[in-house]
Amino acid sequence: MGSRSLAVVILAAGKGTRMKSELHKVLHPVGGRPMLLGLIDELRKLDLKKSVVVVGAGGESVRSAAESDDVLFAEQTEQLGTAHAALMARDTLKNFTGDVLVCFGDVPLLKAATVETMQQRLAAEDRPASVVLGFRPADPKAYGRVIADEAGRIRKMVEFKDASPEERACDLCNAGPLMARGEELFDLLSRISNDNAQGEYYLPDVVTVAAADGRDSAVVEAPEAEVAGVNDRRDLSRAEALWQEEQREHMMMAGVSLRAPETVYFSYDTRIEPDVVVEPHVVFGPGVRVDRGAAIRAFSHLEGAHVGPDCEVGPYARLRPGAKLERGAKIGNFVEMKKAVLGEGAKANHLTYLGDAEVGPRANIGAGTITCNYDGYFKYKTEIGAEAFIGSNSALVAPVRIGDGAIVGAGSTVTEDVEAGDLRLERAAQASKSGWAARFRKAMQEKKSRSR
Amino acid sequence: MGSRSLAVVILAAGKGTRMKSELHKVLHPVGGRPMLLGLIDELRKLDLKKSVVVVGAGGESVRSAAESDDVLFAEQTEQLGTAHAALMARDTLKNFTGDVLVCFGDVPLLKAATVETMQQRLAAEDRPASVVLGFRPADPKAYGRVIADEAGRIRKMVEFKDASPEERACDLCNAGPLMARGEELFDLLSRISNDNAQGEYYLPDVVTVAAADGRDSAVVEAPEAEVAGVNDRRDLSRAEALWQEEQREHMMMAGVSLRAPETVYFSYDTRIEPDVVVEPHVVFGPGVRVDRGAAIRAFSHLEGAHVGPDCEVGPYARLRPGAKLERGAKIGNFVEMKKAVLGEGAKANHLTYLGDAEVGPRANIGAGTITCNYDGYFKYKTEIGAEAFIGSNSALVAPVRIGDGAIVGAGSTVTEDVEAGDLRLERAAQASKSGWAARFRKAMQEKKSRSR
Amino acid sequence: MGSRSLAVVILAAGKGTRMKSELHKVLHPVGGRPMLLGLIDELRKLDLKKSVVVVGAGGESVRSAAESDDVLFAEQTEQLGTAHAALMARDTLKNFTGDVLVCFGDVPLLKAATVETMQQRLAAEDRPASVVLGFRPADPKAYGRVIADEAGRIRKMVEFKDASPEERACDLCNAGPLMARGEELFDLLSRISNDNAQGEYYLPDVVTVAAADGRDSAVVEAPEAEVAGVNDRRDLSRAEALWQEEQREHMMMAGVSLRAPETVYFSYDTRIEPDVVVEPHVVFGPGVRVDRGAAIRAFSHLEGAHVGPDCEVGPYARLRPGAKLERGAKIGNFVEMKKAVLGEGAKANHLTYLGDAEVGPRANIGAGTITCNYDGYFKYKTEIGAEAFIGSNSALVAPVRIGDGAIVGAGSTVTEDVEAGDLRLERAAQASKSGWAARFRKAMQEKKSRSR
Repeated sequence: MGSRSLAVVILAAGKGTRMKSELHKVLHPVGGRPMLLGLIDELRKLDLKKSVVVVGAGGESVRSAAESDDVLFAEQTEQLGTAHAALMARDTLKNFTGDVLVCFGDVPLLKAATVETMQQRLAAEDRPASVVLGFRPADPKAYGRVIADEAGRIRKMVEFKDASPEERACDLCNAGPLMARGEELFDLLSRISNDNAQGEYYLPDVVTVAAADGRDSAVVEAPEAEVAGVNDRRDLSRAEALWQEEQREHMMMAGVSLRAPETVYFSYDTRIEPDVVVEPHVVFGPGVRVDRGAAIRAFSHLEGAHVGPDCEVGPYARLRPGAKLERGAKIGNFVEMKKAVLGEGAKANHLTYLGDAEVGPRANIGAGTITCNYDGYFKYKTEIGAEAFIGSNSALVAPVRIGDGAIVGAGSTVTEDVEAGDLRLERAAQASKSGWAARFRKAMQEKKSRSR
Repeated sequence: MGSRSLAVVILAAGKGTRMKSELHKVLHPVGGRPMLLGLIDELRKLDLKKSVVVVGAGGESVRSAAESDDVLFAEQTEQLGTAHAALMARDTLKNFTGDVLVCFGDVPLLKAATVETMQQRLAAEDRPASVVLGFRPADPKAYGRVIADEAGRIRKMVEFKDASPEERACDLCNAGPLMARGEELFDLLSRISNDNAQGEYYLPDVVTVAAADGRDSAVVEAPEAEVAGVNDRRDLSRAEALWQEEQREHMMMAGVSLRAPETVYFSYDTRIEPDVVVEPHVVFGPGVRVDRGAAIRAFSHLEGAHVGPDCEVGPYARLRPGAKLERGAKIGNFVEMKKAVLGEGAKANHLTYLGDAEVGPRANIGAGTITCNYDGYFKYKTEIGAEAFIGSNSALVAPVRIGDGAIVGAGSTVTEDVEAGDLRLERAAQASKSGWAARFRKAMQEKKSRSR
Repeated sequence: MGSRSLAVVILAAGKGTRMKSELHKVLHPVGGRPMLLGLIDELRKLDLKKSVVVVGAGGESVRSAAESDDVLFAEQTEQLGTAHAALMARDTLKNFTGDVLVCFGDVPLLKAATVETMQQRLAAEDRPASVVLGFRPADPKAYGRVIADEAGRIRKMVEFKDASPEERACDLCNAGPLMARGEELFDLLSRISNDNAQGEYYLPDVVTVAAADGRDSAVVEAPEAEVAGVNDRRDLSRAEALWQEEQREHMMMAGVSLRAPETVYFSYDTRIEPDVVVEPHVVFGPGVRVDRGAAIRAFSHLEGAHVGPDCEVGPYARLRPGAKLERGAKIGNFVEMKKAVLGEGAKANHLTYLGDAEVGPRANIGAGTITCNYDGYFKYKTEIGAEAFIGSNSALVAPVRIGDGAIVGAGSTVTEDVEAGDLRLERAAQASKSGWAARFRKAMQEKKSRSR
């Protein structure tokens, strides 16, 4: 996409008090990552040269979260309005001659394709001074109106309170984002006045200042969902819902079966191949890849995991970062995997913890197996060979290696390596007390009846 | 709220056969408690002096569920209509001179604020004889219409079947609840006639009787959702959905992050502080409190639990009554806690059952640990000291005490106390049979091929 | 239902490329079974004599999935249109004189009642040559229009592109399915021409051919939801959602409490009795029956299981095929059952795997119990007697039998039968190393600080 180079100024100086949070508003996540980073990543689909994030006092958390080679910061120490905030990026973008988009850190769903359309409009023959992003909300309420002709040339930007009844009847509203050429944007911004009731410098006045020079501006439209702002956690949940809805549609159209899409949650980088079936109630955290033909069963939770082709996961499987299932491997219910590889066709079907482990092809990990990978200070590795069989309820005390084809007897705690093809068994004496249970019951029933 | 004192007569004599349930209709839960109790508790936000629940034959279950100092019961032995039912409360409310609200046990979402508005209207200068609750349904169907002037003075109450086309065109309908002053209500009710097709005494005829005395009545409006009645389990699920929706909005506006609010279910007394993050698919049963900064991860289920500040719970954590996590404690996947305290910074991350236990600060409970708290007759307590380390797959047979900083070796069954700073280990002989597994496989493969 | 006998021709030769799947489109599941089978089963409510499925090249998977005494197959080797496809069934239905419905394998929600209405219309006095199924979509888009009089007699079938503005204003559209009498249908089909832009033989031209004979056809209407087609996985998820919505309504009206119906998923053969309570987030796979008074708690997953009266299941219970709970039995959190019977009042409350097991009445299975039923080659059975008590964290190595009232001590691995009334206990020596933990910690802390 995008032939002309782009810079973006992202306004993120607002306090976001309605979030009632110690976390900065633009760092609240949408799709599993801070909304600010999602916005920047989306714009990177274009020829994005630089992002300038305008932060306010206390913006350190934003700086440290968004730090990157092509992300710079400007500070707005006083909250004097959106035009003033955008102007703070002037020095940082000195000499930048491409298109500059001003947008908002709390409007996280803006699409690259829309920004590209703004760029194309800015480059059109009639050479508008700026391009405003408009939208037609279901309920236009008190949004500022954009009065434009059919070609999208703006005749007037008007605040709702100043609008005439005819202007209010127009449902094209100002969504906030605005674009101009680098060489002109900051000049226009610097000439905006704060001669208004609030004494603030307003970004849409770029249009007014340009008009005073005899220059037209233009409007480009976006769907309402794309320009939804986040001011409180209800807005945040709605942005998340819109984002998830889009991912689900995208996944299904690409050939992924979602039995109950409304109960499946993706992250920004979830990658799933066609002919994967996802049952109801599944959560994909960041960093998950699922290969063709795999089944992700109900109530599974995956983060940082790679599920190979034709694998079966769940129900109730928890794959944590570093979990890797080779072709046809199977993780069953109430099983947790972390930094562990399960070889081709290997299985761990029930009530198991595999941490810091490497399991060979076709090995069978019995129910209730625990890799004891932690001594309170360090983590140690468990290696299990091809076709090994770990009996149920075993504890493998790492570091330990179970050889190819070896068998560990049920209920064993294995503290030393087991050679390939060997049986290892921990068994204590079995005491059997004849009639003891019957006597115990009698005594307890008496005690219980006395205690009532 | 509410300056004037209030009594409420709640009609609950209906059989509720469409519920197809052995449980009385008004005892079916909304938000985790019987709908009747929820309604009474809501009205307690006002200056509620007495609640009189009118039950029918077989109302014992309602009596025993709702029993309380300020809740009284009246019995309607014959089902002769709503006015007749309300009249049954006359003796119980003798000498009560405040406002009396008549409402319905199966209309569970009525709000105190609405009732207060009814009280204010009743006390207004024009002194109406009664105040009717009206609503404007999306589909007014065959509801009785309330014909009123702009000031809410009722000109006529009319059944749909008796209404003229003009009256039917009016979309203000009778929601059911009605209020009058104690000294007057029962007099009006006693003068209602049953001269109608069904031969029943109808509550809205209070308005008609008062009008015959030359007294006006007034109408106050409520949103449709607030007056939704429950007649079958589909209605019940809709009332629950409306209730949950309201809780979710309330939680989010108060600063709780709900990633997927549509998958999170609260109970009537759930208390969550700001900056708590709740992931998708979480159920809060009754009696849960979550402190600031905690994370409730996906697929968690909490009942009667207190999660301290900055704790992490889940995914797949089940906290049962008496579970208490001190600051920064962590309960991980497939872990159940019941009557157990987890000290500051302590962890139980995997596949564990902690019942009747007290765990000291910074202790680490290994994967697969079970507190054996029950012998079939009594429950016993497990105490684990500060910074103790319980090796994986251990069984702690209560009553037992593990001292501060003690270590229990993986796979141990601990039946006696362990002193502070000691290591306790149960290990049987490790038998190793060289080549046994290889021979076993060969034999079994042969057996398997023969058995085909 | 249905007095006249019926045959159905189901068109399933389409490639379904938009599904992006190796699985044939009509084999993708709705309600837990292939949509084609669901459609046939629905029609079996009528007097269905034969189903003929018209498959294309590569239809083997459809044949093997749908094979049955009354299901036959016809092959359409070239894709020459829907009328041509239907004609492929001619030989198979030779001599069949009842009503023949032509419908579509990818329109899975068609109801028997609607088909019966089509049969009644076909048999009406005016003897239409064929009956077309129509619907009135919310957005009629480019669907073909059915121009009919008030009695449902079709004046004209018209493609959208050929329709006049008046015809386009008609919102009655052709849903696809069509019925005629066996003796006539194939004659009409054989006379359809492919003289159109696509060069295809179109099924709706049955109406045109009949009209040329001076014979009327009629239209019967279905709700839009019932005739929704599946062309991609988004459509599939919508069909599933519609199907689930209908099941939920049906369950609730029959007396099942669904606290959060939108999170509960049923299969086609789920049977639940009244006064069962189902909490949020539950998945019913195929083959489940739940008896009166049982509670299915949150996050449970059931397949092929029978839950007896007054049982409690979950939260987080996984019942797999062959799980059977007798009256009042209880399966708790993180417990898996497979081919296992839990006797009356018996309990397995926590972190347990019961596979190939029979548990007697009132037995108590402690937390963390594992039946070791598999040696890598064969499965073996565990029998547990009435009122037996299995201590926590035990492994029962099958084949093994625990007698009535016997007790197994916590942490035991039981490899031999235990007699009734006995206590069986596996205990190794408990080693206790005084001060070892304290010395270990000190050493490890030093090591850790050096490793930084």
